[in-house]
Amino acid sequence: MYGFLPIETPAMENLTTLTGKYGDEGDQLLFKILDSGDFLKSVDEVTYSSKNSSKLSPSIATKGLRYDLTVPFARFVVQHQTDISFPFKRYQIQPVWRADRPQKGRYREFWQCDADVIGTKSLLCEADFISIYHEVFTRLELPSYELRINHRKVLEAVASTCGFIGNLTSFTIIIDKLDKIGWDGVTKELLSLGMAVDKIEKLKKIMVRIPLNMEAVSILESSLQPSAEKDLGLKELTKIISLCKQNNTEAAPVLDLSLARGLDYYTGCIFEAVIRDSGIGSVSGGGRYDNLTEVFGMSGVSGVGISFGLDRIYDVMLASNSFSENRAKGKSALICHFDQKSLDHSVALAARLRQQSAMVEVYPDVKNIRKQFDYANKVGFGYAIIIGDAEIESGTVQLKDLEKGTQEELNIHQLLEKLS
Amino acid sequence: MYGFLPIETPAMENLTTLTGKYGDEGDQLLFKILDSGDFLKSVDEVTYSSKNSSKLSPSIATKGLRYDLTVPFARFVVQHQTDISFPFKRYQIQPVWRADRPQKGRYREFWQCDADVIGTKSLLCEADFISIYHEVFTRLELPSYELRINHRKVLEAVASTCGFIGNLTSFTIIIDKLDKIGWDGVTKELLSLGMAVDKIEKLKKIMVRIPLNMEAVSILESSLQPSAEKDLGLKELTKIISLCKQNNTEAAPVLDLSLARGLDYYTGCIFEAVIRDSGIGSVSGGGRYDNLTEVFGMSGVSGVGISFGLDRIYDVMLASNSFSENRAKGKSALICHFDQKSLDHSVALAARLRQQSAMVEVYPDVKNIRKQFDYANKVGFGYAIIIGDAEIESGTVQLKDLEKGTQEELNIHQLLEKLS
Repeated sequence: MYGFLPIETPAMENLTTLTGKYGDEGDQLLFKILDSGDFLKSVDEVTYSSKNSSKLSPSIATKGLRYDLTVPFARFVVQHQTDISFPFKRYQIQPVWRADRPQKGRYREFWQCDADVIGTKSLLCEADFISIYHEVFTRLELPSYELRINHRKVLEAVASTCGFIGNLTSFTIIIDKLDKIGWDGVTKELLSLGMAVDKIEKLKKIMVRIPLNMEAVSILESSLQPSAEKDLGLKELTKIISLCKQNNTEAAPVLDLSLARGLDYYTGCIFEAVIRDSGIGSVSGGGRYDNLTEVFGMSGVSGVGISFGLDRIYDVMLASNSFSENRAKGKSALICHFDQKSLDHSVALAARLRQQSAMVEVYPDVKNIRKQFDYANKVGFGYAIIIGDAEIESGTVQLKDLEKGTQEELNIHQLLEKLS
Repeated sequence: MYGFLPIETPAMENLTTLTGKYGDEGDQLLFKILDSGDFLKSVDEVTYSSKNSSKLSPSIATKGLRYDLTVPFARFVVQHQTDISFPFKRYQIQPVWRADRPQKGRYREFWQCDADVIGTKSLLCEADFISIYHEVFTRLELPSYELRINHRKVLEAVASTCGFIGNLTSFTIIIDKLDKIGWDGVTKELLSLGMAVDKIEKLKKIMVRIPLNMEAVSILESSLQPSAEKDLGLKELTKIISLCKQNNTEAAPVLDLSLARGLDYYTGCIFEAVIRDSGIGSVSGGGRYDNLTEVFGMSGVSGVGISFGLDRIYDVMLASNSFSENRAKGKSALICHFDQKSLDHSVALAARLRQQSAMVEVYPDVKNIRKQFDYANKVGFGYAIIIGDAEIESGTVQLKDLEKGTQEELNIHQLLEKLS
């Protein structure tokens, strides 16, 4: 509907592509592939004799498994820049790997679903993503999702308004923890950075989560000190609000000024989606980046993208019973029989039913019919079709509804109606 | 339709699970994952000082990437045997990795699609797979496929009829090469194994590829020496032919007595599918195995499975232009505009069209309309919708058919009809 085309990239990337993109912690979590064949052949004596894992590693492992879909995507865009028509819109659904200690919401192999538009600064992309978020979570029947939005320039204006001088990253690392440590914790940490008590109070007042609408913008307009960042940030938020209206997007995102998500990376809007009361972290994040491809030698190309964590969404849906019942399964039937003769008859019947697209299977062995019913129940068939001598003679079947426990005699025509 | 359920297994398996299952060559082609953290910590001095890659490897890499889907599936079945209802029918579509030198039809990362039934000896499974092969290749519009079938027991009977004594594997390795080296090469190799010339002539007569039907069975009946293997093999082939008839399978497979495909592994029927004149090797293989799970400690469970090589099938389809045109794309439209006002109008129009499931996109920036058309053509849109002041006023659009080059003025109702 939104014109994104699918791409896939290989599981393995050169470690030179991956290393240094995810911070020190990320580098530690990269799965490295041992070089094939005699991997020690070209290791020099000095490196080898140190018996130091981190020194030896680059000489024996030059490929790694992808850690996310964003860096391989940036590598892909730079590599294929002459073949790509910009703005380039792609989506990508693939597993990623992290050498993490497995725990709830954290896996060694997990699936991400990314969508990006690269090669335009148009805020229509941001508005479309807000609309995509709404459609995705509505269709997944997860209405308790909350889409949080921040803007890096507004965040910079907040920091200067509250008199924070110095490294913006250290500021945002602290306020990013608001959800975890609360205002008490954040206050303590900001005080230790030398921020004055009245400025922290001011920050607290500004940082209330409110719906992102024109009222929110005018509150920021009056509470933030004049600056170029403030002007640009509020102008962009205003445009996005108006585009969302034109897009007919029903749900309003929440303005969350504490949202940073690797701020060094994002240069404009920042997105995060959570499922309220799910006890799991964010299920999606994203934002605008002006320099994603720069590290691979292609600068001046702005893009914006979002990434869904599919396993976390699955976990939430499983916990909240959001999966609608597999309706197809309810129409499926196992053909049960009594002997070789009725088994043979079942095979021909199955072929005939399948031609009409019915989902039927024949129990493959001659076995006690109770065992066949057991199997049908365990596997989750909706029906058992029973064929014996009487049915072969009369050209009918017994249809047992495995959920209700009822049974009826049907001719083939009636049977097909039930199974379609 | 045939009741197979999807499963997925992790990309990584313990190397103890993978090693020793694919022969020496296979072991060489396994991608190994370097252990995380200080991987040299527990390596003893003796091992380390040898500076020998194959000795060091097991101490620093304990996981590997899956090499096929069969071994992980066997591991899965054994591990979950108490939760599984047998017969267990599953399919699995996932990439596998081999540290091979990339070339035509041979990739480092490629996709396999496997289907297996485990926990029954019923030949209905074999008949269903023959029918599945036919459906798959018919739907892919690859009618030039050829399904070859052999039976290990019949092959044993052939060997003894032709007076071959000794290791059956060395015999089958030679005749498996028939396609590559022809009868001249095979004769030479069999002679060097001490087989008599008249016996080789006899073998040549038996080994003609003929359609698998009752006539083929009666030819084998009369040409093979009596043996338990002959009786069992021909009885099974007869049953499969009769089940295929009941299954209404249109295409007859080809009986190919030279087909072995890792015979040590298969114990009954053996399958191979090729696309005639494609210049690529087989695109699918499979067979019945009685001992697949034995190596993981679960014996006496017979199964049968097939595996499609998706990349090779893709290559064949690409070469033969078998991909039907993306019809959806033909109905897609890019909305083009002249200034900020018509861009804003385009956004609202796109929202309205999308509500009716039309595939439309708005060109996101204000730019020369020629550039917008260029982009639409390059990306492959079917239509360009053009909106200017006149169209905003009259509530219409200009619809340009990018393939035909024609243009017409339409109201929204007419536009929706064109795009749906």
